[in-house]
Amino acid sequence: MAESGAPDVSLPSWNDGPAKAVIIDFVTQVTKSGGPAFVPAPARIATFDNDGTLWCEQPLQVQVFFALDRLKGLAARDATMKDRQPYKAFLEHDLKTIYELGKKAVFEVAFATHAGVTEDEFDRAARAWLASARHPKLGRPFTQCVYQPQLELLDYLRANGFKTFIVSGGGIDLMRAFAEEVYGIAPEQVIGSSVKTRFEVRGDRGVLVKLAELGSFDDREVKPQNIQLHIGRRPILAFGNSDGDLAMLRYVKSSEGPRLALLVHHDDAEREFAYDRDFRLSPLAEALDRADEYGITVVSMRRDWKSVFPDPGDR
Amino acid sequence: MAESGAPDVSLPSWNDGPAKAVIIDFVTQVTKSGGPAFVPAPARIATFDNDGTLWCEQPLQVQVFFALDRLKGLAARDATMKDRQPYKAFLEHDLKTIYELGKKAVFEVAFATHAGVTEDEFDRAARAWLASARHPKLGRPFTQCVYQPQLELLDYLRANGFKTFIVSGGGIDLMRAFAEEVYGIAPEQVIGSSVKTRFEVRGDRGVLVKLAELGSFDDREVKPQNIQLHIGRRPILAFGNSDGDLAMLRYVKSSEGPRLALLVHHDDAEREFAYDRDFRLSPLAEALDRADEYGITVVSMRRDWKSVFPDPGDR
Repeated sequence: MAESGAPDVSLPSWNDGPAKAVIIDFVTQVTKSGGPAFVPAPARIATFDNDGTLWCEQPLQVQVFFALDRLKGLAARDATMKDRQPYKAFLEHDLKTIYELGKKAVFEVAFATHAGVTEDEFDRAARAWLASARHPKLGRPFTQCVYQPQLELLDYLRANGFKTFIVSGGGIDLMRAFAEEVYGIAPEQVIGSSVKTRFEVRGDRGVLVKLAELGSFDDREVKPQNIQLHIGRRPILAFGNSDGDLAMLRYVKSSEGPRLALLVHHDDAEREFAYDRDFRLSPLAEALDRADEYGITVVSMRRDWKSVFPDPGDR
Repeated sequence: MAESGAPDVSLPSWNDGPAKAVIIDFVTQVTKSGGPAFVPAPARIATFDNDGTLWCEQPLQVQVFFALDRLKGLAARDATMKDRQPYKAFLEHDLKTIYELGKKAVFEVAFATHAGVTEDEFDRAARAWLASARHPKLGRPFTQCVYQPQLELLDYLRANGFKTFIVSGGGIDLMRAFAEEVYGIAPEQVIGSSVKTRFEVRGDRGVLVKLAELGSFDDREVKPQNIQLHIGRRPILAFGNSDGDLAMLRYVKSSEGPRLALLVHHDDAEREFAYDRDFRLSPLAEALDRADEYGITVVSMRRDWKSVFPDPGDR
């Protein structure tokens, strides 16, 4: 972490093997001044998915746990909510029904629970929740359900002149409430799903009020669209973990010059979770099947990562 | 300019007077470690409008001149275009009719002329046009119709730890084609109007194709909305020149802590243009009338700027 002095950029939580070698080789090539694959620092843009790529997304994305706690508060004021779908499924932790809804519908419900809240109120609520909520199975705060090898990779890239961005289906403002502290990624380098807002002057103060209307669901082909909107140039490195990232990986990988596209494969039931094509909220099927064809490097959590989560003592 | 070594951060093109004093005082306060108004560097976000604030917007915004040349090409292939409004007005340089359309309609026509073009094709076309086109009255390239005092202000702010952004009604990708070289502002720090895009794989290559459908017209209350979407925190300094910037200026100014909002008043017919409430494409009326009430500092081009444009020899 940046806070604890100069980061260790030797990727200590990555096992020696083809994935680590490909990363180090790529970074060495693009930073070699005068070399054939040299990329000037301003163009060293790296984009990371968040859910399942930088932190745990099982059994539900953190976004959904956040919405669940918010829904409990709303249901306490509106007794009919617990009998109405999709709220009923959320309030009963009915995973089967939630999975059936699919990622976009589930996230839309999650985002809509904050309609009417200002950006400042949301930020305070998100920080308070993140400070106290714990992952139901891992038993640690969600902000410690991040992947240690990825924290090291972010540090390593930045130490080599890269600018690191998040490009995630998660709500943009929930991620901004912890990304700077946990990942070292500033709010303006976080891209995510968003709702529309209304600008209002309350008293003398201009505020932005979240609406129940989706602005952008940052998944699949919307990821390259939002990369163009927010960043305005094609990244040279992208890291994802599901078919929702495939358009971004292909967008990055299909350009001229040196490009690296990576995919986390969750094959580690012992230390995290093992899942891919059957996880309804974020399946990994096409991207895995066609990784070779598209030139995507698959990172096996089990094989390539020496440790998965940070040591609680470190944080 | 950043290219010519360390920038002169004494604001030499600003006359001594209240505007320069207020800027220097503000920057001194927020950078004084331990002082009551200190702002940590990551929160030193400054947002600048572009048309009329960083470069000339008379007699039409540069965006419209760019579209005009593009329309000429399209009209050569479609003879009916010259008889149809609004294209007729554009092709005949009929300013009266163009002004009557209003800014949003004019810009929508401008953006629509690039429908079907990929992001890479657009970037090449924009760079080629900017390299050859000249302002019809000032007789210099549009990229030299930027304001020298503002170039110095951008350098001064960055030298003091600020991160500088553009937040403009102009097309986001046209600005990105010159903002890094001319203003020292990276593509990912440019916010502007945008059209929707479609992600396509052409051959093996993923591309983004511009559509004729407006994504966001970055003017008035949309400016604070887009600031939240792209930056995710409230700037502490904003600079505009029209009522289209008023929501942004109030959003910035109405927060807690030290905040500076500035407005260029174009009152210099001799060196540039003199206009405010009667310029239909970008009127300055309410913001000027209520500047005192809202705590906005008005910068007089005539009084506060020692020079307006860069010396051609410098660039």
